[in-house]
Amino acid sequence: MTTCAPIRMRVFSLNCWGIRFLTKQRKERFLMIRDLLFHQQFDVALLQEVWCEADFLFLKEKLGNVYPHSHYFKSGFIGSGLAVFSRHRIHDAFLYRYSLNGYPYMVHHGDWFGGKGVGKIVLGISGLTVHVFVTHLHAEYSRERDSYLPHRVVQSWELLQFIRHTIAGADVVIMGGDLNMHPDDLGTRLFRSYTGLKDCFTETDSFDGCEGGNTHISENPFTNSDELVPFGGGVRIDYILFKGSEQVDVSCESLSTTKGPVPGHPFSYSDHEALTAEFLFTPNKKKHERSERQVDSFPDNLPDLVNTVNEARTEVKVGLHCAEHMRHTAARTGIMGLVLLVLELAIAAIPIFNLGDDQPFPKASFYLLGALCFAILLFTSLLYIFYSMELKSLQGAEDQMRLALGSLQERLKESPKGLSSVRSETVQLKT
Amino acid sequence: MTTCAPIRMRVFSLNCWGIRFLTKQRKERFLMIRDLLFHQQFDVALLQEVWCEADFLFLKEKLGNVYPHSHYFKSGFIGSGLAVFSRHRIHDAFLYRYSLNGYPYMVHHGDWFGGKGVGKIVLGISGLTVHVFVTHLHAEYSRERDSYLPHRVVQSWELLQFIRHTIAGADVVIMGGDLNMHPDDLGTRLFRSYTGLKDCFTETDSFDGCEGGNTHISENPFTNSDELVPFGGGVRIDYILFKGSEQVDVSCESLSTTKGPVPGHPFSYSDHEALTAEFLFTPNKKKHERSERQVDSFPDNLPDLVNTVNEARTEVKVGLHCAEHMRHTAARTGIMGLVLLVLELAIAAIPIFNLGDDQPFPKASFYLLGALCFAILLFTSLLYIFYSMELKSLQGAEDQMRLALGSLQERLKESPKGLSSVRSETVQLKT
Repeated sequence: MTTCAPIRMRVFSLNCWGIRFLTKQRKERFLMIRDLLFHQQFDVALLQEVWCEADFLFLKEKLGNVYPHSHYFKSGFIGSGLAVFSRHRIHDAFLYRYSLNGYPYMVHHGDWFGGKGVGKIVLGISGLTVHVFVTHLHAEYSRERDSYLPHRVVQSWELLQFIRHTIAGADVVIMGGDLNMHPDDLGTRLFRSYTGLKDCFTETDSFDGCEGGNTHISENPFTNSDELVPFGGGVRIDYILFKGSEQVDVSCESLSTTKGPVPGHPFSYSDHEALTAEFLFTPNKKKHERSERQVDSFPDNLPDLVNTVNEARTEVKVGLHCAEHMRHTAARTGIMGLVLLVLELAIAAIPIFNLGDDQPFPKASFYLLGALCFAILLFTSLLYIFYSMELKSLQGAEDQMRLALGSLQERLKESPKGLSSVRSETVQLKT
Repeated sequence: MTTCAPIRMRVFSLNCWGIRFLTKQRKERFLMIRDLLFHQQFDVALLQEVWCEADFLFLKEKLGNVYPHSHYFKSGFIGSGLAVFSRHRIHDAFLYRYSLNGYPYMVHHGDWFGGKGVGKIVLGISGLTVHVFVTHLHAEYSRERDSYLPHRVVQSWELLQFIRHTIAGADVVIMGGDLNMHPDDLGTRLFRSYTGLKDCFTETDSFDGCEGGNTHISENPFTNSDELVPFGGGVRIDYILFKGSEQVDVSCESLSTTKGPVPGHPFSYSDHEALTAEFLFTPNKKKHERSERQVDSFPDNLPDLVNTVNEARTEVKVGLHCAEHMRHTAARTGIMGLVLLVLELAIAAIPIFNLGDDQPFPKASFYLLGALCFAILLFTSLLYIFYSMELKSLQGAEDQMRLALGSLQERLKESPKGLSSVRSETVQLKT
């Protein structure tokens, strides 16, 4: 029952910064978020960092009348932090958990415990199938020495793969979330160019919000503004992106961000700014026939895409070297612990060292040393297993990238007239 | 460039039982598998339990002329064990790793270390987009006391979700692998009825192989035949399934299995029997227009599906109770360890117990007890984290199932004429 009248849809996205015990004014802020969602009556609200299920349940209870449908994506030790509130029935929900997401021993960063991923819901709006994605990528703690960069690149890759593989049946695709990457960062470019998703900020003619569309700004009372000095006081790391199909033209009518402290309140909704996008869906009257290879449709700019995938592969290889080095270190340390343990046991077995209480090798030190060796062995074994899994994930992503490159390069070659013909075909097959 | 002439495709699937150091005659068997793949020239060979990358690389090197395209799905500590060899270019590969896959401390079962999942490749065969899936689910070690059943049900759910969400752009869907479930087991029924994939064994008119299509038989020299006595000497746990689309009719022309020892060899290819299916793809001359909601197309039998999903939800809830119980036990034991440690430190701090060498609480025992308490604390913390993650995965699957049930029941209600009309609509919308 597809209608041909244009349909409006308003989408909201916010990183809620909701960590139990750790984030400031959490309860008050969730009250404010509830009021905002209640009054604004968005079609869909995409929330990130709702780490505490009680906060989700609070919103769900209070907003049941306005948003009768909601989903909380559970994953990892704490959760994925992803939640969706919708005025339209959610027909289906699915979560893809990223294979890499930081290190468990970096407890103070905590990303590993969050089980980050990309959540997908399927909505039916006026007869259109709308696929909505929400995600949150690994945080960037230091731009200069960003040891998590390969993890974030692999996450971008898995995100784009998940979206590319699951949207063939969609009339409209919308994605929102905190990518923790600037617009020109490798991961963002890779993701955008491969999926063909368009950035609301660059696409809309009507923008109202922070300068440059920034969503992490020094004016925000929860932000350490010193961190943002190198970036001119703000960065854009939260996004809403979209894509239409042969059945539906989609345009972003407007985009807005909050601007730090909320008028009438002493603070902001979160340490990030919220995004609101308004879309117009115009169903094509003349329904095109489905193109022969929907999944294989050409991305906008093939040679650029090849370069970007190559760049990503290089970054993943850097991560591979690093993970291999760490695994070697864990193995070497473990072997040292084992040798020490064996040596100690040998000493104990040789009667000359007879571990009497008045001997030069007293019992207490003996047991302490033994316990230490054992602890080293245990920790390094766990680390060895962890780094091996990290290696496998990095290798897996690199293999997929190599395969994709082969396929893309084949297409470049297949085009005997060179680039110009690739581009014309792109226009023809573009969804 | 879709051709209208029928296309034949031969698909092979085998659980290769390739565990380094542990499985018998591994090298010899991989030589035999190489010969088989070389001579048979299948279109696609789907291999499971290729746990050792060297075996994959061996096959890749030796079979490069016949199968120029291959992919090895890397995941977990050891790998996913999944490998694909193809005569057609692999345009794309993607892996979904199951969120639950046994317990790391069940080292002798080893499933957890394997990082099991479902691998997908995209092939273009004579202009048709063929999506091929290969998977391997958690093993069943005891049918009576199967503590892994909730894990396998969640894996079935994630498998069906992954397939349902990613096949909208496919002309043909093929899945092969070791499901470790009998044909009427909950997970198999759930998976089959929700995806609409058809089982080659029940669909083909031409079957040649073990009785009942069994793939794990007592005649196999590597099988412990006592285990199979309750099942009449064999079980069917390996499958090849398929599905066409509006663009292409697919039929299974024949299915065959190996039958234990290979003629001319002293043993079998593996402890499982291999499957070979031959398909006929007949592109529809009159291309139908794409149905309005491809993803939402009705499964074959809606009321049955509702019952099966309910049954799966119950099983997941059993798993939830079990995981909660285990987490409580871990927490209680951890608290006991902590109390003991604090008590010990208190004793050490009180001068009356003064830990001299001639005191009733000698230093050696003190340190040993301390180390024990510390070890208990560490292990229970790790277990607590693990069980929390298990709980989140089970809850996540249950939430998705509840959502799906709501959507399915809505559809049942929407049909005022009751079941008969649901069924007629099913036929109409069936892909």
